[in-house]
Amino acid sequence: MRTVRVVQWGLGAMGSRMAALMAGKPGLELVGVLDTAPDRVGRDVGELLGVERWAGIVVDQPGDGKAGPLALFQRVKADVALHAVVSFAHLAWPQIRCAIEQGCNVITTAEEMAYPQAQNATLAVEIDAVAKAHGVTVLGTGVNPGFVLDTLVIALTGVCARVDYIKATRINDLSPFGPTVLQTQGVGCTPAEFEAGLRAGRIVGHIGFPESLGMIGKRLGWTFDEVRQHRKPINSCFRRETPHVVVEPGQTAGCRHTVQGIIGGRVAAELIHPQQVCPELESVETGDFIAIHGEPDINLVIQPEIPGGAATAALAVNMIPAVLDAAPGLTSMADLPVPSILPQDFVSAASAR
Amino acid sequence: MRTVRVVQWGLGAMGSRMAALMAGKPGLELVGVLDTAPDRVGRDVGELLGVERWAGIVVDQPGDGKAGPLALFQRVKADVALHAVVSFAHLAWPQIRCAIEQGCNVITTAEEMAYPQAQNATLAVEIDAVAKAHGVTVLGTGVNPGFVLDTLVIALTGVCARVDYIKATRINDLSPFGPTVLQTQGVGCTPAEFEAGLRAGRIVGHIGFPESLGMIGKRLGWTFDEVRQHRKPINSCFRRETPHVVVEPGQTAGCRHTVQGIIGGRVAAELIHPQQVCPELESVETGDFIAIHGEPDINLVIQPEIPGGAATAALAVNMIPAVLDAAPGLTSMADLPVPSILPQDFVSAASAR
Repeated sequence: MRTVRVVQWGLGAMGSRMAALMAGKPGLELVGVLDTAPDRVGRDVGELLGVERWAGIVVDQPGDGKAGPLALFQRVKADVALHAVVSFAHLAWPQIRCAIEQGCNVITTAEEMAYPQAQNATLAVEIDAVAKAHGVTVLGTGVNPGFVLDTLVIALTGVCARVDYIKATRINDLSPFGPTVLQTQGVGCTPAEFEAGLRAGRIVGHIGFPESLGMIGKRLGWTFDEVRQHRKPINSCFRRETPHVVVEPGQTAGCRHTVQGIIGGRVAAELIHPQQVCPELESVETGDFIAIHGEPDINLVIQPEIPGGAATAALAVNMIPAVLDAAPGLTSMADLPVPSILPQDFVSAASAR
Repeated sequence: MRTVRVVQWGLGAMGSRMAALMAGKPGLELVGVLDTAPDRVGRDVGELLGVERWAGIVVDQPGDGKAGPLALFQRVKADVALHAVVSFAHLAWPQIRCAIEQGCNVITTAEEMAYPQAQNATLAVEIDAVAKAHGVTVLGTGVNPGFVLDTLVIALTGVCARVDYIKATRINDLSPFGPTVLQTQGVGCTPAEFEAGLRAGRIVGHIGFPESLGMIGKRLGWTFDEVRQHRKPINSCFRRETPHVVVEPGQTAGCRHTVQGIIGGRVAAELIHPQQVCPELESVETGDFIAIHGEPDINLVIQPEIPGGAATAALAVNMIPAVLDAAPGLTSMADLPVPSILPQDFVSAASAR
């Protein structure tokens, strides 16, 4: 039984939360931090986060290609890397691979990594093979994809004799978010700008719908004939204002992104995720809602919604024991034991190698 | 890949639901049924259940001790037995053992088997050892214990950085239940009869609280200094009537059973389960409610409550693949992958031996 050696890869908003959270867990030891931001590279992590326990750890420069990370992973011999850098699997994979090849398990918040089989089966096979070859496990997790619109949905079907239709909705508030998120959700556009942004790929809505649907399909044995995504502007009737954006009446307050999984011409599963600033101004109540129609019907409500940033950081840290215990390869939240908070006094038997 | 061979042990209200449910799953094959009720023994299961697929299967007589079951398990070479006979671990164990020793995995709805470690550590060690010796897995499951007040609570803590206090409440309606359940919940008593029934052990309230608390404690790393159970009468102001009982004003409509897990003099977890007939007459809304106080706070509501009978039967059937895939030994819902409905086209790779 010893502490688990963790590399924090990415010290942005999400990675900082993870690193700070780990400081309260004696069983976890931060042994390295990677980031590219010029104002973080070379700085003391304890100072950056205001966390005394991590004083003396310096943010490493990833360098060109993978030279930096490679050197770090060779030096620190980490058990697991928490990777919070990008959203897309094809961008995450070269980085994750670098950790894997040094025998390091990986937990990533890259949305597409929650179930990369959904959009890139070839890549998923490669990830699985490389992870197995090096005896480590790769997991993508987060609040969504990873929990609210997939794992929790799947768990609820466990009490069902029959499931006919699934509708899961996550209504959240983008007001706390900064310019990058607001832009990708199309906040503060004219309707024409919103349409143009969608076409140009500047406005993307939620990343992770095919992955959530894929996880549900896998566990329920559902093969979707078609997966339909829709991104619609949420037009505002009122002026909405946050520290980072002003939305005038008639402009867009966000994006209502939905996905439908079609089986035999029928919508079998529908995931709905409208994201906007100041939803309360138009009496929109935020929350997580899951309705399962079948035998029996299940209606679940979580209000307010599970907060995204806090939950994603917590899940990444909390899944460490399950990832250390899992069989090598590419896994998913749908394959692992039910998540739970990492015990305060967690020590790992599995990490001893 | 072949069908899973299942023995249904107990064909009462719960076992009948399981057997009927399995008839709709081509990947499951009912290969034997055990029951002691004189009006079921020797009868055709297809006829008893009105399920054509199980025609020709005759309800076996368990016989004295374990002679009957032993002969059955030796003959049918089942992969898994679904055991729905008793509530208490010490009564379930001799029966479960008989299946185990013939190399048969067991899923039981005996409430105390959800986490027998909670009240009988010695027995739990024995179950685990015998199961391992025979290379099979034993799981206790059901809606409660097994899902609402433990597995679902545990899963929600997965998004938390800190958990200070857990309060989970299941408010249900006993109106559909028959005399046995109504008596053990103290429905239709005078207050004095209720107190006397509690003392005599005729009124027991809910079975499974120490087990649910034990599962939560295990996954959260919480060691409770003390576990306090309280059983209070739910006194009725109005006349309440079901097909099986009449409750006059001033009599008891049911039992409000609670358990508290104490750590350092503080209630860290509290599970609340008031069960009564006709709750709507006093404006009591049924439902499942989970509140986690911590970082973040989580408030979950499922209304109406997940129906107990249907959910328990479904869970027992739905957990079959996870039990076949699990490492040998005594397991629990807190150790296995998130539950899900058994795919309609389920076939097992794991059951090939």
